[in-house]
Amino acid sequence: MSEEKYVIDTSLFVNPYARKKFGKTPTTAVKSFIKKVSKSEIDIYMPPLVFKELNNFVEKDAIDELELVIRKRAPNTYSIYLPAAVLYDFIEDIRARMNKGMRLAEQFAQDNRPDNDEKLRKLREKYREAMRSGIIDSKEDFELVLLAKELDATLVSADEGVLKFADQVGCEWLPAERFHDLIKKKS
Amino acid sequence: MSEEKYVIDTSLFVNPYARKKFGKTPTTAVKSFIKKVSKSEIDIYMPPLVFKELNNFVEKDAIDELELVIRKRAPNTYSIYLPAAVLYDFIEDIRARMNKGMRLAEQFAQDNRPDNDEKLRKLREKYREAMRSGIIDSKEDFELVLLAKELDATLVSADEGVLKFADQVGCEWLPAERFHDLIKKKS
Repeated sequence: MSEEKYVIDTSLFVNPYARKKFGKTPTTAVKSFIKKVSKSEIDIYMPPLVFKELNNFVEKDAIDELELVIRKRAPNTYSIYLPAAVLYDFIEDIRARMNKGMRLAEQFAQDNRPDNDEKLRKLREKYREAMRSGIIDSKEDFELVLLAKELDATLVSADEGVLKFADQVGCEWLPAERFHDLIKKKS
Repeated sequence: MSEEKYVIDTSLFVNPYARKKFGKTPTTAVKSFIKKVSKSEIDIYMPPLVFKELNNFVEKDAIDELELVIRKRAPNTYSIYLPAAVLYDFIEDIRARMNKGMRLAEQFAQDNRPDNDEKLRKLREKYREAMRSGIIDSKEDFELVLLAKELDATLVSADEGVLKFADQVGCEWLPAERFHDLIKKKS
């Protein structure tokens, strides 16, 4: 089994639990990742949008080095077809979340105590949790799964929403925190 | 041109502008629709979920008669495939709406005046507008478009979000307010 393909998510370096075996910070994790991957025969891909996102968390010298080790490629979203049922489920899910967001907004609008800063912090936290956790909520998430599908690659992520979507479209995946052990085995 | 197929939305009877030439109320519009369609050679379809929704607006005797004139059928969402780009655009759109909903919630949470009922009414109105207008936001909307696509039929709706989605998947449509004239021409 050589020439295996993997599509990696930023969560591999950004999520502290996922990067634990690679390094303490996103930057040290990327540097250790580069060393280990260079010795193996596997191909690592990242969608350009996801690579760009990683720039916000990792120092420039590590990013520059990473760019030469991985392959950047976007999925062709115009040539890939998905079962309509996937969008159907998504619409259902979004509708429930919108209703939940509405109830949260009502609840906070009714609370007329003057502690506004604390109130707003709580509102944001609860709203984000209700709207975005466990669902693909960005172009980046979507591109990860679509690229893995297009390449018939294994997706490596610690994002619950991304992995759930991967299952819906029949895409192979590995939890990000297992990737260190995988490379070790392959080297 | 006989044996034409049309998939109709509840908006044909529920939207006052769309039903204008059929009747003043949803029930009278449905009754007049039945008379006119019975004389023509066209096939009218409704997804069962959409037909059920119409029950909330139209009296039982008219609904019972309508059920014998139209064909009820759900699209097979497992056999229809959509370009991934459709879901990609949808995720982008939803993300922008969620952010807008968040800003609305913040704005109303910061307003500590005690007129709660009026405040909540306004919040609901604005939130609904931000979240749901111009987008498919229900299983019913989705089934309309998918059924029309599956049958290669023309979709008849006055819903902006439904018609936009029809365009995205290449589905023929007619604005609901033109349907009266169309039947007249075909009879």
